[in-house]
Amino acid sequence: MIVRRLSKPITVGTVTVGGDAPIVVQSMTKTDTRNIPATVAQIKELADCGCEIVRVAVPDTEAAQSISTIKKNTSIPLIADIHFDYRLALAALKGGADGLRLNPGNISDVSQIAKVVQAANERETPIRIGINAGSLPPTPKPYSSIANHMVSVALEQINLLEGLDFDLIKVSLKAFDVPATIKAYTIIAKKIPYPLHLGITEAGLPKTGAVRSAVGIGILLHEGIGDTIRVSLSDHPCEEVNTAYEILKSLDLRQHGPTLISCPACGRAEVDIISLAQSVDKSLRGITKPIKVAVMGCVVNGPGEAQDADVGIACGKGRGAIFSKGKVIRTVDETDFLQALMAEVKNL
Amino acid sequence: MIVRRLSKPITVGTVTVGGDAPIVVQSMTKTDTRNIPATVAQIKELADCGCEIVRVAVPDTEAAQSISTIKKNTSIPLIADIHFDYRLALAALKGGADGLRLNPGNISDVSQIAKVVQAANERETPIRIGINAGSLPPTPKPYSSIANHMVSVALEQINLLEGLDFDLIKVSLKAFDVPATIKAYTIIAKKIPYPLHLGITEAGLPKTGAVRSAVGIGILLHEGIGDTIRVSLSDHPCEEVNTAYEILKSLDLRQHGPTLISCPACGRAEVDIISLAQSVDKSLRGITKPIKVAVMGCVVNGPGEAQDADVGIACGKGRGAIFSKGKVIRTVDETDFLQALMAEVKNL
Repeated sequence: MIVRRLSKPITVGTVTVGGDAPIVVQSMTKTDTRNIPATVAQIKELADCGCEIVRVAVPDTEAAQSISTIKKNTSIPLIADIHFDYRLALAALKGGADGLRLNPGNISDVSQIAKVVQAANERETPIRIGINAGSLPPTPKPYSSIANHMVSVALEQINLLEGLDFDLIKVSLKAFDVPATIKAYTIIAKKIPYPLHLGITEAGLPKTGAVRSAVGIGILLHEGIGDTIRVSLSDHPCEEVNTAYEILKSLDLRQHGPTLISCPACGRAEVDIISLAQSVDKSLRGITKPIKVAVMGCVVNGPGEAQDADVGIACGKGRGAIFSKGKVIRTVDETDFLQALMAEVKNL
Repeated sequence: MIVRRLSKPITVGTVTVGGDAPIVVQSMTKTDTRNIPATVAQIKELADCGCEIVRVAVPDTEAAQSISTIKKNTSIPLIADIHFDYRLALAALKGGADGLRLNPGNISDVSQIAKVVQAANERETPIRIGINAGSLPPTPKPYSSIANHMVSVALEQINLLEGLDFDLIKVSLKAFDVPATIKAYTIIAKKIPYPLHLGITEAGLPKTGAVRSAVGIGILLHEGIGDTIRVSLSDHPCEEVNTAYEILKSLDLRQHGPTLISCPACGRAEVDIISLAQSVDKSLRGITKPIKVAVMGCVVNGPGEAQDADVGIACGKGRGAIFSKGKVIRTVDETDFLQALMAEVKNL
């Protein structure tokens, strides 16, 4: 149903972004990059929860110099996030960064950018042109919209890089404003061949930020736009990764562990379906296989959903029917709901 | 940017659904409807958190008979959720329900449906044709897709109601599968003039269910489809309402209380921005004015976002700049961040 925009793939370390590669999930460390053990530990946590590319902030020379040691002790590709000072980009490349993110809003000197591009070209290291509505360069005359301003800055920077014979480019155009973000990506998607990195910037705390990110990123992915995504949440970065996979899973674009179908409960349910769903969710942690498990509270949609899932339970008063691969396996008492369901999960 | 599909408005109690009315937020009680005090209390909680229409399950006669007392003690329009037994619909109408939800998957007898429609017509009470992928009626030959099956059942039921001279119709076509849901609503949106009630059914626990709902409902709303939404979560119904508003707010379709813009934190931040964002979020509770508050951790996007918000803080090492309506009001020490920011919020 989704017809994906065709983009020119690039390689970030060992990971392909763009073309027909799976949509890549990335995040960013929240540790002080100069604190090498803490940063390495967080990157390992991120790799364990499914993060495929990690970005680290490089605010100073010490942070840039930490990259080589961090790289030696971690497995996923590492991108250096650079602002203000082009020399930090050079140092990060020297340290072995697999990619750079440059912000045209705060590095604008053409000769400085040329030095970075030359060093990146020698190493075949890609650069993300990372536009952010919160840090756009000053403009002599105002644009008609934030989206147009973001697109214009990106196109100018792309033009500059192409003129320097560099095309290992990835582009992002992030705003907190979802309609502005959608508009910007929709415009640029038709104008350039490069892969797009999607995100809603500064989306906020986990609950509200996840919803805002899901709406913005979800709409773009459904339009076929986007080759890699980063969900920005004021929370542990693994929450960003989990949310990113939930977005991708909901559109059948990636698989990632079990999916729980559970009814919201209502006055019809005769068991505490919310508690049961929570217990099942806990029991499913650690399972990596992409199975569908349904926990349903009554006879209205219960049998239908339980039948469609790989494993399911449709509960009635004190008894529940356990389904596996579309068939009722047995009926069990309420005290056995969790155990019986998980036994069938293990049987898969 | 969003061009809304034009639908024929209906009135549910005092609330208009469809036409150019604001997109209505609804939820469903999770109490036993026969437990009148518990149900009344939950409806009051729902009204307080912004729920505009509430649905209650009506699994038996006692539940149907509870409606008149529940109605007398609550203020928002009430919809009776009916399955299997048309007589419960008649009893709910008699009790003063402001709307009915009928499921063609489990009430199919034409003469029974005709009796309900006649009673609804006499009271000018709307009926939602509530299709659910988990409870579709059996079909002699399989459809090419769930979406087509849902649409076909809905169209047949609409035809039946129209033939009985009834047009106070609202339609929903819910599935857990997001692409199937999107496809179904997209097809029917072009075929009928009636308002559409959106939802992703059995979306699951709050975190994953909110993301799945945001993707599905967000994509449809962005296409201009949808007149009322219900987010289904295995959680307290006020969480459903909060999530619904976050979806609508992210697309600028509704306003609802403060919006917090907060950066995800990274190795560049020199203050604990996540804790600060959490504290600000807590302090903003109870405020109903739709203000934008930005909590930012560094100089990259901090000043830009803080400037764009109604009130904001851009933090540096030990000091932060407080913004109000786009201007720096003062700089404060780290110990005063929260207090100074909230003082400006109160000044609005």
